[in-house]
Amino acid sequence: MKRKAPLAVALLHYPIVDRQGTVCATNITNFDIHDIARSCRVYGVEKYFLIHPMQEQLMFVERVLDHWRTGEGARMNPMRRTALTDVETATDIPSALHKWGQPNARIVATHARQLPGQEKFSFSGFKSILEEDSDPYLLIFGTGFGLTQDFMRNCYAVLDPIKGDSKDDYRHLCVRSAVSICLDRLLGSW
Amino acid sequence: MKRKAPLAVALLHYPIVDRQGTVCATNITNFDIHDIARSCRVYGVEKYFLIHPMQEQLMFVERVLDHWRTGEGARMNPMRRTALTDVETATDIPSALHKWGQPNARIVATHARQLPGQEKFSFSGFKSILEEDSDPYLLIFGTGFGLTQDFMRNCYAVLDPIKGDSKDDYRHLCVRSAVSICLDRLLGSW
Repeated sequence: MKRKAPLAVALLHYPIVDRQGTVCATNITNFDIHDIARSCRVYGVEKYFLIHPMQEQLMFVERVLDHWRTGEGARMNPMRRTALTDVETATDIPSALHKWGQPNARIVATHARQLPGQEKFSFSGFKSILEEDSDPYLLIFGTGFGLTQDFMRNCYAVLDPIKGDSKDDYRHLCVRSAVSICLDRLLGSW
Repeated sequence: MKRKAPLAVALLHYPIVDRQGTVCATNITNFDIHDIARSCRVYGVEKYFLIHPMQEQLMFVERVLDHWRTGEGARMNPMRRTALTDVETATDIPSALHKWGQPNARIVATHARQLPGQEKFSFSGFKSILEEDSDPYLLIFGTGFGLTQDFMRNCYAVLDPIKGDSKDDYRHLCVRSAVSICLDRLLGSW
């Protein structure tokens, strides 16, 4: 636990780009709740926010959380309850930051490809910042085909893309894997 | 592409330990097909095997693969087809190695906790081996509550567990995240 800077993770469902490049809102999926909550819990992330502008979508998340936190799921699988302790819903980023108690946290976006003219964080650079600074950071992951360029331009920085090691530079990680790899690079020790 | 050693990944569904420590076979889940295939594809893994002794379970996988490779899914999402190119099913490890064309590949197991008296690979040690050797390796991930101790004792080595950074040493990553993090540590460059 060398880290000093408070860090939270958010999964954004709007504004998001779809396959055709159109701005849209995506549906929340059950696996995004559990898999990302577990990764955040393993790496000691303070909060994991699922962000969606529609209350109906957030109510779906709350029903899932209730099942595992206080319902039958809590008795059947107590470790799943532990994983979901720090999961929260929010309609937008300011309300997530308010719930976290860090209204001035710096927003760092993630994307599968490099964007020209954007302030960049390398993984090792951001890792050092998290270990040495005490400013709070919110790390944002997009769904669908990713965050919009407008959204990223308004962020404090964008984290370097994960490149992998394929011959054809294939980069279509699912967001659950992308979160896990980013947290391991930023917070893991081995 | 510094790597020289052929590497494949397998997700094992039998023999597996359940919550009570009993040996069982687990069901194959749809997300394990897609998420892990995409991570393997991004990191240039040669083959990804879903291993289950029951033909019915493997037929479920083959139906999913058909949908995305040649059915409606291939037209709707060609990148998903690309991700699934190197996915195969097998009833057991020898038949997976045979399909791969590497019957003598060395089996490396993974587990969330350290096992006493077992030959261990550190991530950096195994990474060097993959870069410098030309012997083939099959990296095995368990489902349920993990691989059995008997199974691991018969493997060539067991990879170090992923420790994370939580105050209470919580280590319940989903297998999809565990695969992604392991591949990034072994094959990623950043």
